[in-house]
Amino acid sequence: MEGKGILIVLSGFSGAGKGTLVKELLKRYDDYALSVSMTTRAPREGERDGVEYFFTDRKSFEDTIKNNGLIEYAPYCGNYYGTPKAYVEEQMAAGKNVILEIELQGALKIKEKFPESLLIFVTPPSAGELKRRLTQRGTESSEAIAGRLARAAEESEGIEAYDYIVVNDSIDRCVEEIHMLVNASRRAPVRNEAFIDEIRKQLQSFVKGAE
Amino acid sequence: MEGKGILIVLSGFSGAGKGTLVKELLKRYDDYALSVSMTTRAPREGERDGVEYFFTDRKSFEDTIKNNGLIEYAPYCGNYYGTPKAYVEEQMAAGKNVILEIELQGALKIKEKFPESLLIFVTPPSAGELKRRLTQRGTESSEAIAGRLARAAEESEGIEAYDYIVVNDSIDRCVEEIHMLVNASRRAPVRNEAFIDEIRKQLQSFVKGAE
Repeated sequence: MEGKGILIVLSGFSGAGKGTLVKELLKRYDDYALSVSMTTRAPREGERDGVEYFFTDRKSFEDTIKNNGLIEYAPYCGNYYGTPKAYVEEQMAAGKNVILEIELQGALKIKEKFPESLLIFVTPPSAGELKRRLTQRGTESSEAIAGRLARAAEESEGIEAYDYIVVNDSIDRCVEEIHMLVNASRRAPVRNEAFIDEIRKQLQSFVKGAE
Repeated sequence: MEGKGILIVLSGFSGAGKGTLVKELLKRYDDYALSVSMTTRAPREGERDGVEYFFTDRKSFEDTIKNNGLIEYAPYCGNYYGTPKAYVEEQMAAGKNVILEIELQGALKIKEKFPESLLIFVTPPSAGELKRRLTQRGTESSEAIAGRLARAAEESEGIEAYDYIVVNDSIDRCVEEIHMLVNASRRAPVRNEAFIDEIRKQLQSFVKGAE
């Protein structure tokens, strides 16, 4: 069937382990690429341009918007964040499944624009486990943790918009499951339109030929 | 997540090889059961009651309808055909994935009544291959084959209603693919409502607790 790569949107509660899952997926399989976001915020220590983000200024970002160069974008805390279109399209044309790690609102925009995109939501085994993971990090104030949990409560309202929900109870198992789900999604009719059209046309031609 | 079996509707063009796929799936994996239809038509030679069909008379069939004992039913060529509810429910409660081999209209009814059912459409690699398989059987008149192809052309219009489309190019590969798709479908939000509800409730309780 169609050999093009799949656009994968990976969302999930902060603390669900999305970053680790993506890293592991890229390490294990050749057929994935991670989309790098563009942002106007300043790089933090250790962040490299083109790796963590494409860093740019407000003017260039707005020019990119005007030139229709972003798949989606949103302002957040006074800065812009967006997904450059060219890289995603190149990778998909080369057969790679491109992963976007974005939150609910962005995911919904992507699904609207690209119905053939695949939306996966990652969650820990329970809310209690999420709280435990956030607390155990020991790097955040209890206010910050409460904020993340409040945000998680909001995001949980959107889970039904996703194609699949994945429980991250073990990185190893979960990576294999995501890979399996990506393969399964290749069999959805929305990703086989050319094949379906062709079979319809052929069948119609047989029916006409028999008349 | 939820351990209950999945209701699988398997449809596909006549000649796509559904029967062989189902037999092979039942042979390879313990977690499937085939739903046996009830019919008012007379048994053909070699057909056994409770194996190919549950054979019954018109009066009993209509009583079963009245008692809400069928998941779906339809008249066809002067006889009734339907899916007894009790067997399906028992098997699913026991964790089995129950396979219904029915056509498009029945499949749509099932999906409407049971949104968590899984609809899989089986197709040969091409319409040409379908024609070749039907012709090669050598058991049917060219009118009968033309009728089957016309029916296939109609059914092809409904493929988008299915969750997955599977190409039967090799029985072995195709059986494994169907099994993979059934496992993948366990991760759809619609089949994890209890889990999602629970995580929402817990998150809400954390938010309220922090206020």
